Amino acid sequence: MTAILYSLCGATGVHYSPHVWKCIMALEHKGLSYTLQPVSFGEIKHIEDGSFSSVPVLNDGGTILGDSFSIAEHLEKHYPSLPSLFQGQGGCAVSRFVESYCKTTLHPPLSVAAALDMHNLMGPADQDYFRTAREKRFGKSLEEVAEGGMKALQSLPEKLAPIRDIVTERDWIGGDKPLFADYILFGTLQWVQVCGCPVVLEETDPVHQWFQRCLGLYNATG
Amino acid sequence: MTAILYSLCGATGVHYSPHVWKCIMALEHKGLSYTLQPVSFGEIKHIEDGSFSSVPVLNDGGTILGDSFSIAEHLEKHYPSLPSLFQGQGGCAVSRFVESYCKTTLHPPLSVAAALDMHNLMGPADQDYFRTAREKRFGKSLEEVAEGGMKALQSLPEKLAPIRDIVTERDWIGGDKPLFADYILFGTLQWVQVCGCPVVLEETDPVHQWFQRCLGLYNATG
Repeated sequence: MTAILYSLCGATGVHYSPHVWKCIMALEHKGLSYTLQPVSFGEIKHIEDGSFSSVPVLNDGGTILGDSFSIAEHLEKHYPSLPSLFQGQGGCAVSRFVESYCKTTLHPPLSVAAALDMHNLMGPADQDYFRTAREKRFGKSLEEVAEGGMKALQSLPEKLAPIRDIVTERDWIGGDKPLFADYILFGTLQWVQVCGCPVVLEETDPVHQWFQRCLGLYNATG
Repeated sequence: MTAILYSLCGATGVHYSPHVWKCIMALEHKGLSYTLQPVSFGEIKHIEDGSFSSVPVLNDGGTILGDSFSIAEHLEKHYPSLPSLFQGQGGCAVSRFVESYCKTTLHPPLSVAAALDMHNLMGPADQDYFRTAREKRFGKSLEEVAEGGMKALQSLPEKLAPIRDIVTERDWIGGDKPLFADYILFGTLQWVQVCGCPVVLEETDPVHQWFQRCLGLYNATG
């Protein structure tokens, strides 16, 4: 049975949730069949049984669950004979640290830098909701947030130092092959890339080269 | 046979290498018998066959190797029936990211902050060597470096944000039990603590509480 992955989608069809991208990569890694079901912000509360307030949501043959890490754990548990996302219990546990790093170090500057680009992708109803929520959070207009965002982006290459260090020594955070740990970071960078936010890394930057390797893994990113 | 772990040691007997501390914890985790062989900077080149330029060095029944991560991998491979340090291949791979995080994010400010305290622990010959090397690297006196170090320390709580995030949700980076990933970070913080450098975290800080849990694991840290 083909799984359904609900994905936050712009008016022009761009999938722009970092957490959905982690799940797209996890499904591709397992080689599972799935369809992407686009939803707007306003439609999230109507997904499946109406109990979700964010995406991703996965319906895997009647098993319905949210949260990207929980979805990866579900896929690992239910499809143990397909390529592993964690390579063992320790890989699952320590991947949480990659999640914590992305959440605390990268998401704050990127969510500022990409705010206006995200807004511009949305349909009118989502734009109203998003602008109101973000302007309340930041205490200024989205356009002013975007100006500050360019400054926030300048700190990105330095904030990526731990990633640069590991992917200088090996191709993947997972070692000689990608694991869910790679997809956690990939989702974070792919999110801002598909929004059109200019995350510029030097072509010689090992992080850029790792990101290009991720883009080349599956058709989903083409 | 009791293994020998060569450890950089001050004139008063303080073991002050972060990388040796990782190995102490790994040996304790495995429940292996070992002795700590103190060496000064000047004695490192005389360890075993004379091919090492840094500690730790482990002599495990005639197998002699350096580098803390390699030592952990050796212990995991050669004592598979003892408690696991990685819980699988993925745990080993992704633990490298914890190493990269510590190396790029924590070691630079801590090595500045602890420079004078480290110097003050050493015997006279090591002090001369260390002062000359560090003053050349920083381009100022060790005392001036120490002054700047207090400023560097102020950034520490913020730099620990990814750790704070993960140990708020679970007791260990390894999940419900400590793994080598925990000991990588522990070694980094224990290094500056045993030097007497004031790494002050609030008692309510989950990182402080995690560090206290680490200190309570084995007698070695008592």
